[in-house]
Amino acid sequence: MDNRYYIFILSDSLGETASHVARAAMNQFLNKDYVVKKYNYVRDADAVEEIVIEASKHKSMVLFTTVMEDLTNTIVTMCATHNVICHDILSPVLGQFSSFFGDTPVRKPGTMYKLDDDYFERVAAIEFAVKYDDGKDLRGLKYADIVLLGISRTSKTPLSMYLSHKNVKVANVPLVPEIQVAKEIFQVPKNKLIGLTNSPEKLNEIRIERLRALGLSSDVEYANFDRILHELDYAEKVYKQLGCPVINVANKAIEETASIILEITGLNIKLK
Amino acid sequence: MDNRYYIFILSDSLGETASHVARAAMNQFLNKDYVVKKYNYVRDADAVEEIVIEASKHKSMVLFTTVMEDLTNTIVTMCATHNVICHDILSPVLGQFSSFFGDTPVRKPGTMYKLDDDYFERVAAIEFAVKYDDGKDLRGLKYADIVLLGISRTSKTPLSMYLSHKNVKVANVPLVPEIQVAKEIFQVPKNKLIGLTNSPEKLNEIRIERLRALGLSSDVEYANFDRILHELDYAEKVYKQLGCPVINVANKAIEETASIILEITGLNIKLK
Repeated sequence: MDNRYYIFILSDSLGETASHVARAAMNQFLNKDYVVKKYNYVRDADAVEEIVIEASKHKSMVLFTTVMEDLTNTIVTMCATHNVICHDILSPVLGQFSSFFGDTPVRKPGTMYKLDDDYFERVAAIEFAVKYDDGKDLRGLKYADIVLLGISRTSKTPLSMYLSHKNVKVANVPLVPEIQVAKEIFQVPKNKLIGLTNSPEKLNEIRIERLRALGLSSDVEYANFDRILHELDYAEKVYKQLGCPVINVANKAIEETASIILEITGLNIKLK
Repeated sequence: MDNRYYIFILSDSLGETASHVARAAMNQFLNKDYVVKKYNYVRDADAVEEIVIEASKHKSMVLFTTVMEDLTNTIVTMCATHNVICHDILSPVLGQFSSFFGDTPVRKPGTMYKLDDDYFERVAAIEFAVKYDDGKDLRGLKYADIVLLGISRTSKTPLSMYLSHKNVKVANVPLVPEIQVAKEIFQVPKNKLIGLTNSPEKLNEIRIERLRALGLSSDVEYANFDRILHELDYAEKVYKQLGCPVINVANKAIEETASIILEITGLNIKLK
């Protein structure tokens, strides 16, 4: 038996809820040496037994999100039999909802993703973001919910993709001092425009890294400090001219910047 | 007071964990007319009070994921004072982890996204998927973890984007009977290739919809049944020639197909 902690995650479907909760909890404990083992689509007692026996060989905890009552009871019983700590994530919440709604849950696994209007809207938003990435086609700007602007390496693409998963149609356009700002950008309503910026140190670091990845020498103008300051200065002037809000992405995760953007633009986002 | 159910979701950070759990639970109750109100970055008693008072005006339940003990206690107390049902999602899990690790949680909000290697790898994977979408640049194929093939409307783009959020580098290439399969595809290791297909009825439906969205008449060849059968037949032959697994995406959510792809390719995915 090794000395590490093992976290077993069991789900009767894709396992996204269980992973989210497990990660949120684990992040509250520092410096732990743990191994995560994830099992999706667990739907019968045999599969449960196999996993619990595996868990019993280590210092393990089993976290699970299953909705079928029989299966849930099986997991609890088998963990007790094999002396494995286990935690049921969903049952307490289902219980609360049950009394709130005055109704019983259907207890049917895999109802997480319905192929409904909301779903198809999301797929369309993702395709939109890919199509109108990097100023590829400016005709898309007038259909966008949000237009992101920024010089190279200000997270335009990952932000667009992340927001598209929230059913938001995002286009992004790069700013380059040598290329005039397209007239289409001036036609975008102010409340849809977001200017992105970054710290010069961060940009220098990321661009050197990027050149290295491309097998190029780091003394190319792209990563040059003066060049970066020139670009940032240029972007600032464009943002002033457009009168759009500016977000500095330095030291922010994509998820955090995206959340700020949704806040600023006042987009009422449906629950994902 | 209207007659609908109100679900208030409170989080001290981005609220993704709370949303996931709430959605998983709500999907187990059918035909409920409910309103979801989401509050992120709730970090002080004043904010809590305002929300709980708002909740008390409706038939409400408060779900929350907060890690600071004071704040958690404030929510519970205020909900009790205002007669609002509330449910603490995270505390029971933190308690379990506490005994498992024999340690106390740091109780610091917003530690969900660390700007670590894993994070930058994910951003790189997203950029990769955008860059090598739709066969735009076949030089990317040799760096991909997965290469998706398929005729038009087989979910290539949304699948690539979804998988990229799981740190997987995905390229996708369209199959068109009139265009010869690129030699680069034959150089991709078999275990990285996935063929996508769809039912002819579904393709017909989606393509008519797409033409309509583009303002075109639905009798264009693109949506024609014979044309679709011809394309499907062609794709089948290519997949046989390549010897790659084939997934039918009809009636499957992106998340489900993605999960099958990860299973087939045996990619060991880090916990997201």
